[in-house]
Amino acid sequence: MPWHRKDLLDLQSLSAEEILTVLDTAREFKAVGQRPIKKVPPLLGKTVVNLFVEPSTRTRISFELAAKRLSADVINFTAEASSLRKGETLKDTARNLEALRVDFIILRHSAAGAAHFLARVLAAHVINAGDGAHEHPTQGLLDLFTIREKLGRIAGLKVTILGDILYSRVARSNIWGLQKLGAQVTLCGPPTLVPRAFESLGCRVVHDLEEGIREADVINLLRIQHERQRRNAFPGLGEYTSLFGLTRQRLTELRPGALIMHPGPINRGVEVDSDVADGEWSVILEQVTNGLAVRMAVLYLLNGARAVAAAPA
Amino acid sequence: MPWHRKDLLDLQSLSAEEILTVLDTAREFKAVGQRPIKKVPPLLGKTVVNLFVEPSTRTRISFELAAKRLSADVINFTAEASSLRKGETLKDTARNLEALRVDFIILRHSAAGAAHFLARVLAAHVINAGDGAHEHPTQGLLDLFTIREKLGRIAGLKVTILGDILYSRVARSNIWGLQKLGAQVTLCGPPTLVPRAFESLGCRVVHDLEEGIREADVINLLRIQHERQRRNAFPGLGEYTSLFGLTRQRLTELRPGALIMHPGPINRGVEVDSDVADGEWSVILEQVTNGLAVRMAVLYLLNGARAVAAAPA
Amino acid sequence: MPWHRKDLLDLQSLSAEEILTVLDTAREFKAVGQRPIKKVPPLLGKTVVNLFVEPSTRTRISFELAAKRLSADVINFTAEASSLRKGETLKDTARNLEALRVDFIILRHSAAGAAHFLARVLAAHVINAGDGAHEHPTQGLLDLFTIREKLGRIAGLKVTILGDILYSRVARSNIWGLQKLGAQVTLCGPPTLVPRAFESLGCRVVHDLEEGIREADVINLLRIQHERQRRNAFPGLGEYTSLFGLTRQRLTELRPGALIMHPGPINRGVEVDSDVADGEWSVILEQVTNGLAVRMAVLYLLNGARAVAAAPA
Repeated sequence: MPWHRKDLLDLQSLSAEEILTVLDTAREFKAVGQRPIKKVPPLLGKTVVNLFVEPSTRTRISFELAAKRLSADVINFTAEASSLRKGETLKDTARNLEALRVDFIILRHSAAGAAHFLARVLAAHVINAGDGAHEHPTQGLLDLFTIREKLGRIAGLKVTILGDILYSRVARSNIWGLQKLGAQVTLCGPPTLVPRAFESLGCRVVHDLEEGIREADVINLLRIQHERQRRNAFPGLGEYTSLFGLTRQRLTELRPGALIMHPGPINRGVEVDSDVADGEWSVILEQVTNGLAVRMAVLYLLNGARAVAAAPA
Repeated sequence: MPWHRKDLLDLQSLSAEEILTVLDTAREFKAVGQRPIKKVPPLLGKTVVNLFVEPSTRTRISFELAAKRLSADVINFTAEASSLRKGETLKDTARNLEALRVDFIILRHSAAGAAHFLARVLAAHVINAGDGAHEHPTQGLLDLFTIREKLGRIAGLKVTILGDILYSRVARSNIWGLQKLGAQVTLCGPPTLVPRAFESLGCRVVHDLEEGIREADVINLLRIQHERQRRNAFPGLGEYTSLFGLTRQRLTELRPGALIMHPGPINRGVEVDSDVADGEWSVILEQVTNGLAVRMAVLYLLNGARAVAAAPA
Repeated sequence: MPWHRKDLLDLQSLSAEEILTVLDTAREFKAVGQRPIKKVPPLLGKTVVNLFVEPSTRTRISFELAAKRLSADVINFTAEASSLRKGETLKDTARNLEALRVDFIILRHSAAGAAHFLARVLAAHVINAGDGAHEHPTQGLLDLFTIREKLGRIAGLKVTILGDILYSRVARSNIWGLQKLGAQVTLCGPPTLVPRAFESLGCRVVHDLEEGIREADVINLLRIQHERQRRNAFPGLGEYTSLFGLTRQRLTELRPGALIMHPGPINRGVEVDSDVADGEWSVILEQVTNGLAVRMAVLYLLNGARAVAAAPA
């Protein structure tokens, strides 16, 4: 299917066909990553800016590598070293980057909607690399890619997302993507982090770990991010781990062949034990490999998109 | 006109012909920036080091992109991550870079004269990206480029530089460049920031905004840099804005077709209102685009310069 | 001699033949550094990650430049901006990098043995860029290269390493490399920093400067690193300088043609006077030039090594 979007902002607005186009394209790029020479020329002469207003070395490196393997030039722009400290607005920063005729802006930002805002005011391609608690679409796509590759399909699968759903952009992108491709999504965790309101998105909400994972084909663990949790919504770490931490013992309740996924970085001994994270059920490192392929696919597809005029700001 | 200089250190020592050579070359590179493939090969195999001892993400990115579009390899070296913290001198750092056979050093430094010093002790090409309150020659050149492109000429124009002249390297580079090309320069701002002494440089000094901008073909606004101002020389921000902030209302006093310029980043609501900065008089974003073309031109010209032996240290 | 190692971790485990292979290869790459176009294609399409958990701008830049001159793509990953802050282990970070199919990891780390650990768990090539007080093998190799180039041989030379031996990875790599190639090593400094125990490595230990340097063909000065010294083991700076600082006056006791070396950055006026560091005995800047050639040689040789399967973690 031909690709027509200027930007990748979320999975909510993508069709199932568009998602499949990314996954199919990523499969080609994954094969490139197995070669001794992993560099291909599609983005030669193009400029990609990693605009990370919120730090994330892993995601930045995955995008940087994806762009470089496509032969683009990459500029890293992190907020800590930037004029954003001097009170400049995101809009001014982005317009300045566009005045430099950069072709892609990859934005990580603490504010939900930041990438959508940039996409509206800029002619450059914008990729959302995580905006507040809203979405993290390339993470959702790489999770879909991994599930499809390992289990052969997505439709009809039972996928449990486990942890802090309320504040998770990874959860949101997964929910949209999985449902569009026909999976059944269960959200599992303590009531303060997994409110019933998510049922309105079509998900099953469960507050008991055993019930949440028993039937699952896939368990997608979320990172417990101490730094971001609201104090009164979050139980103590020890309590969370005793109720929802994935231990080897609890794996005995899983269906054979179920996948353990995690977007990383892992808190070993908190949301997952080391022997589970490193064990035979885990596809966590394959997710990293697939993330690179998915990001190459997204850059490649956006680059081929017909130019879309930026709306007036 | 052939280019013979090893370094670009200031506009004070350039001839009008040399300045015009840069502007004409930049016009060619601006055209390159409009192409889908913006990369050209002149600096292939050359190494450019961005040595930024004082932070400036915008200027760093503009130079980084200029160098990469010319196919150079770029190394970023910021003071915060560097051995300069360990007490190493600038000279030792620079000599080490030269021992690595780097071809260009782009220096941003808080000390006036730092780039001149490096240029004397190194065989590498040195570009001054701002040295204290002394000069910022590529900013001056891009301002000249923008004026010439928009108004068709520079000779005979009336240009008002508005703001903190006393501490501004942008002002100094503009004053030299504009006068060499035949413009009349007015400096405007409060007496503590625009002392009469500047009249000795051939400028008109005015302490009233209305008088300063009434006849101007170009108004070049300077950023008010709170962090750098001497406390007793600088009025309160609110007072500055009420007396010298450029509001839409005050634009009514301008000549038709006058340009509003600003080196960025803008303090919206301080030295300029948002609707002025984003309005039809403003060429602020074109300055950013032109800055990239000017920096490509400077790198290109210096690269072609005949090798000049470094003087003994 | 063909090269068979996957990693460069230390000089202790290299044979004299392997060391000579690196030095001979580096000689070829030094010649490349003299050309106007210094870029060669062997690592095209390969990815090199500079994983610097301990800051070192100089070493990072030398490796970055070496990799870029071999046409590799380089990703910089410093701990300060990384998820290591979030409590991720080095092993997780490294495995994630490997999942991205990076080809080389260059590791600077405060823990002795960190590079060996990574080399065991990863299929990627690992280069030790300094691990705690253990080894800094490329520094040792560039020192050997410089001595051989300037004096024509290493066997039979008398080399004095002067300063804080106890905490120095540079000293350890030098001791191993020099002895393997047949030099006689003297360690000189105050007893708290140069304990007699080093005699068991085959070195002569001397606590008097004059005695330490009188017969030397080479004096390799170590940086006094205030920040790392144990308080009670280290005399005051002034006392150190008066007893062991290399002044022009003390040079009169040296043999004619002796070399003064230093790994940098120099503390001028502490372990060495400025006129000695910049004088005719000094080869300090040549060491920097040679370091680049040595690092190109190491990357080149490892890249050609037959793939070695990673051991199970």
